[in-house]
Amino acid sequence: MRTVEVALGSRSYPIMIGTGLLARAGRESARLGLGKKCAVITDDNVAPLHAPAVMASLAGAGFDPGLVVVRAGEKSKRLKTVEQCHEQLAAHRLERRSFIVALGGGVVGDLAGFVAASYLRGIPFLQIPTTLLAQVDSSVGGKVGVNLRAGKNLVGAFHQPRLVLCDLAALATLPDREFRSGLAEVIKYGIIYDAGLFLKLERQMDLILAKAPAVLAEVVARCCEIKAEVVSQDETETGMRAILNFGHTIGHAIEAVSGYGKFLHGEAISIGQVAAARLSERLHGLTVEETRRIQKLFQRAGLPVTLRSSAGLKSRLQAAMRLDKKVSQGEIKFVLAKEIGRVEHGQPVPEPELVRALGFGLEPD
Amino acid sequence: MRTVEVALGSRSYPIMIGTGLLARAGRESARLGLGKKCAVITDDNVAPLHAPAVMASLAGAGFDPGLVVVRAGEKSKRLKTVEQCHEQLAAHRLERRSFIVALGGGVVGDLAGFVAASYLRGIPFLQIPTTLLAQVDSSVGGKVGVNLRAGKNLVGAFHQPRLVLCDLAALATLPDREFRSGLAEVIKYGIIYDAGLFLKLERQMDLILAKAPAVLAEVVARCCEIKAEVVSQDETETGMRAILNFGHTIGHAIEAVSGYGKFLHGEAISIGQVAAARLSERLHGLTVEETRRIQKLFQRAGLPVTLRSSAGLKSRLQAAMRLDKKVSQGEIKFVLAKEIGRVEHGQPVPEPELVRALGFGLEPD
Repeated sequence: MRTVEVALGSRSYPIMIGTGLLARAGRESARLGLGKKCAVITDDNVAPLHAPAVMASLAGAGFDPGLVVVRAGEKSKRLKTVEQCHEQLAAHRLERRSFIVALGGGVVGDLAGFVAASYLRGIPFLQIPTTLLAQVDSSVGGKVGVNLRAGKNLVGAFHQPRLVLCDLAALATLPDREFRSGLAEVIKYGIIYDAGLFLKLERQMDLILAKAPAVLAEVVARCCEIKAEVVSQDETETGMRAILNFGHTIGHAIEAVSGYGKFLHGEAISIGQVAAARLSERLHGLTVEETRRIQKLFQRAGLPVTLRSSAGLKSRLQAAMRLDKKVSQGEIKFVLAKEIGRVEHGQPVPEPELVRALGFGLEPD
Repeated sequence: MRTVEVALGSRSYPIMIGTGLLARAGRESARLGLGKKCAVITDDNVAPLHAPAVMASLAGAGFDPGLVVVRAGEKSKRLKTVEQCHEQLAAHRLERRSFIVALGGGVVGDLAGFVAASYLRGIPFLQIPTTLLAQVDSSVGGKVGVNLRAGKNLVGAFHQPRLVLCDLAALATLPDREFRSGLAEVIKYGIIYDAGLFLKLERQMDLILAKAPAVLAEVVARCCEIKAEVVSQDETETGMRAILNFGHTIGHAIEAVSGYGKFLHGEAISIGQVAAARLSERLHGLTVEETRRIQKLFQRAGLPVTLRSSAGLKSRLQAAMRLDKKVSQGEIKFVLAKEIGRVEHGQPVPEPELVRALGFGLEPD
């Protein structure tokens, strides 16, 4: 087992990465000195696979866990579901020292994290991410929240978990498409922070796609390390944490415009990152060769890099981007790459370039 | 004009108390260096009275204010209304540097504060409380949130305003019952913190009920000072801030059991404080004479001190109290008075005493 520490002063916490960690939920919770009552929040895909092991582990360690199951999918990430969860916590008599266990992918982690952040003005929570995407990205860093009709993740809080348990065994039950979606965030860490990781992914993509345990453990741990370093330096995204959004402004717009659920998050940001790489090539010094390597790596991971165009799509994408949280005083700022392994945030992109960048990812009608 | 500072390090802010401050909203917002877009959230009682002045002041100072009007009353304090507000903020294109102005009583302040705390993971907000209760209590201290069916204020956040403007002129339009309700919190500050204030209230209650400007300004400012001192010492209620809950465990239970809206908050905590005084007399050294003075002062303010009993009421009150946020590990803790001006929090109350205390406030069938 590997452990990565997220250093945030009194809010520091460990990320544990290994095989069979679901069954350690109870023991690790006991070490944190949390209250007896707790609730496992999960979805109806994950519940039959993993909830029994986690519930048994918690009960075995002397806790009194309740189980809250929401419908799987992005549509559950809304305030109505948050309220339904809250009412169940109240019915199970959760108090200020009680805690939440978020068991599932990114949707469950974001939702359950916001439920924990807002119930009784905030109670502790644990993340047990069961998808690759959640393990390397959404479970770490304390960004929790839900969607509005107007856009994704527009409602939320910063609420750090007390512990993250990444059980690599859970990835075995993950559908192939979900696994590949997670690789989009993995590749992102190479582009934004670690040229060595990017090279490793180029060399070992076949082993990773085959879920070779040793390689997978190393890659997941390295991604968590990078995320932890970035978050430790800028918890609430006033500065450098923004580099984690590489490819996300366009990616989120694609998700919003195409209707949540059509593209998986990783698929949308794969297209977004390739577009951001091309913008970086035009505006920020990334070489043609690097752009090519970036596009190729996403393709080898089985991820889409273009979007089928339709009438009005471009203007709908632009409108969606203007609602992005990263908009400031009406101007859209981008994360752009200087080279593979090094990016800079807060880069203003002129409107014509933006239109052109969107075009990069659009296939002709 | 008087100014009271709430000292919370980088989250410090001033409370301004005076006449005609509504019209200064724009100028004061400009001094805070906030973004251009903003939204005034208010209810349909307050909107016709005060929204035009505030909107004009903001627009006059160069801001672009939107107006969000919710239905007046406790029923608007729920996540459904929060989401409706969020969607309107998104439609008005509020960004991270944009801000919210909470214009109204406690319901609006709690709701709009939570809207601000959760939109884009938190944007700045200003409180412009227009009721006595909101001016002396709910607008100061950063506790924001909404209700569940299971209980009051069970959902929320700590999110400090950037500024509180208490316009005493707004109290002129306040219905008499609302004004008296606010006096329940005013009297509370005397009991929990300041025997001199309590004595002043005993001597000048008639002037206060007549809304004599000089006395009112002095009393509101003193209450804000006390709240600011307590909050500065314990922002997130890990300790002494709990003294502000004197009478509130029973008060909240009364509100929950009788259906929100039947009793005004101040009426419920008036009954709750008299019951807590009697508990204090039995368990904590408060004298019979002091209990009598406390009950009499609430009565002079025109507030109820007893509750009409009905079958099953006591057990429903007990059940509601067990859901209170102040419950820890299943035990209900109370704030009890040693003497007028000095209370202690975290006092365990044995079950039979609790049942008896509830009986104190119950009139026979």
